[in-house]
Amino acid sequence: MRRNGTLLEGLTEETMINKKENMETMFWRDASLYILDQRLLPQKKEYIACHDASAVAEAICNMSVRGAPAIGIAAAFGMALAAQEAMKMDFSPDQYRAYIRDAADNLARTRPTAVNLTWALDRIEEWLRGNENASRKEIMDGLRKEASKILVEDIEINRRMGKRGSELVPERAAILTHCNAGALATGGYGTALGVIRTAVEQGKKIHVYIDETRPLLQGARLTAFEMKEEGIAATLITDNCAGYMMLQQNIDLIIVGADRIAANGDTANKIGTYSLAVLADFHSIPFYIAAPLSTIDNTIESGKDIVIEQREPSEVTTFLGLQTAPKGFAAFNPAFDVTPASLITALITERGVINKPDRQKISRLLY
Amino acid sequence: MRRNGTLLEGLTEETMINKKENMETMFWRDASLYILDQRLLPQKKEYIACHDASAVAEAICNMSVRGAPAIGIAAAFGMALAAQEAMKMDFSPDQYRAYIRDAADNLARTRPTAVNLTWALDRIEEWLRGNENASRKEIMDGLRKEASKILVEDIEINRRMGKRGSELVPERAAILTHCNAGALATGGYGTALGVIRTAVEQGKKIHVYIDETRPLLQGARLTAFEMKEEGIAATLITDNCAGYMMLQQNIDLIIVGADRIAANGDTANKIGTYSLAVLADFHSIPFYIAAPLSTIDNTIESGKDIVIEQREPSEVTTFLGLQTAPKGFAAFNPAFDVTPASLITALITERGVINKPDRQKISRLLY
Repeated sequence: MRRNGTLLEGLTEETMINKKENMETMFWRDASLYILDQRLLPQKKEYIACHDASAVAEAICNMSVRGAPAIGIAAAFGMALAAQEAMKMDFSPDQYRAYIRDAADNLARTRPTAVNLTWALDRIEEWLRGNENASRKEIMDGLRKEASKILVEDIEINRRMGKRGSELVPERAAILTHCNAGALATGGYGTALGVIRTAVEQGKKIHVYIDETRPLLQGARLTAFEMKEEGIAATLITDNCAGYMMLQQNIDLIIVGADRIAANGDTANKIGTYSLAVLADFHSIPFYIAAPLSTIDNTIESGKDIVIEQREPSEVTTFLGLQTAPKGFAAFNPAFDVTPASLITALITERGVINKPDRQKISRLLY
Repeated sequence: MRRNGTLLEGLTEETMINKKENMETMFWRDASLYILDQRLLPQKKEYIACHDASAVAEAICNMSVRGAPAIGIAAAFGMALAAQEAMKMDFSPDQYRAYIRDAADNLARTRPTAVNLTWALDRIEEWLRGNENASRKEIMDGLRKEASKILVEDIEINRRMGKRGSELVPERAAILTHCNAGALATGGYGTALGVIRTAVEQGKKIHVYIDETRPLLQGARLTAFEMKEEGIAATLITDNCAGYMMLQQNIDLIIVGADRIAANGDTANKIGTYSLAVLADFHSIPFYIAAPLSTIDNTIESGKDIVIEQREPSEVTTFLGLQTAPKGFAAFNPAFDVTPASLITALITERGVINKPDRQKISRLLY
């Protein structure tokens, strides 16, 4: 994953995303978007070839690609694919644009919680508005370039976030993380894991503790995989074990990503994050959120208004197709929870670190 | 499971444990102990026939039988089996007793945390001391009867605990429980689930939320199974979801079992219990421990001295036998954690409920 960083230097966006790397979260080749099927990791490394926007929507829905920044990037490429598809039809210029916008609506409906999805779609929309007289060919090329730009910028943002966040990481820190906020959740490098990567690159001896993160085990499957690939010392624990680790003074700080941050700093992230924040508070352990500014949703006053995606109960009653609970047993499966700003020690963004985030400080950073 | 209770009335201990019920945790038949293999639940209902003490030790080790009271009962029957085995050998009376005591040592080594194991072995040892002149045949019969008595008493104790604990359960309570402290963890009826059963029998409309309880999923596999069998309304959640449920005011009280309680009230129970206690404290939700007096270990001053069993990392890196994390990934897998007495609202025992348990109150209850 670190190669994402190296790749950036001296390579244009085009070269980068056209180059099939071993483990890119997604890449563009031959007029298609290739999405790494993260459901199969770490056992299998397979890419899904998306030739049209609806294939991208499906990959987001079924979580082949996941992680707030990554689904935003995928959606942007989905728009580029829609522009491509529409080329094959006998559309008037207006119909052409309408078709692309329909695709955007469809992509926006895939998952409700991560704001980066709508952020990326809005940015594509903005490009369309800014290029009112563009030909269909120009739109097609323009959207692909804009999507590539979003991807490349995301990696740059993660690197900047990494630098800022790493100042909060002491030498020999034991860091607990939840879910996967790594290269696989972003264009590359990662948000929370980006901070860890930078600290390691700085020569700090870090030990990472990874919550396995039920129900979909992004910690065990994806974060563990990334740490192994990088050779960063890490230990997997069950989500149940986190509190006990804190009690035993085995954790120096907690760092996680975010799916949507309200104007007041309340933060939606993978289910279980809230419990960690309460536990961190109880044990006086710093609790950090690392997220790009695009994750901040200023239209939402507080966490109360964040829509929490409810997923299939079968994700809880089964695992990889194996039944755990009795068949048909009722289960409750919210994909995210909301941590109030009061429990967040600092918010790490590409533009700076906000200690004890609140409405005023966030607004000052944004404008 | 409720039939355990009905069976008790009008039936002698002998009839009861000789009767093969559908779903007894264990039963005695034809000079063997049959242990329900709980590793296979709820998909398969298979009994392991233990013809000798070492088979019982193995069943405890590999968690075919688990739950503090249940492993105590199994160990007592293990001693009865040892007395049977030794009959076939040309032992002197002293050698005969020595053989049985060796079996006790072997059984005691199986799992370190639950004190009920040594409590039951001590009780058998006491019987042996109290019957110094008994013949080998008398010992063999005596130990089997004593083990049966421990089983029957355990169910009675659970029923008494249920009555006392149910007074703490309001009408229409939403109750969160962790792991399995039910009929399957005991001789029958259950400790924490015994309290829930009694409340339901009293006509209270209860809803149970069940933590799935990684890594071995005793919540999803066993507690869900028991609730389904009884027709008690219940919903399964991931362990990650518990804090969010509390934040949403969906939980009125938490009740769990215990594996060892120190003299000061600090309580070892399934990993994840401590996190729940901290979360309950943060949300001002009552946090109850239901455990028989035999779970209190007065020889241990505080939780610091409780030995926590460390189990195989592979329980964390796999899920129902399927690899989750990259192969060979490091994992930390303590089977239990310790909740300090200060976080326990009340301790429910067969002799009474101790609010805010401490050394003095516990000692007063015991003596």
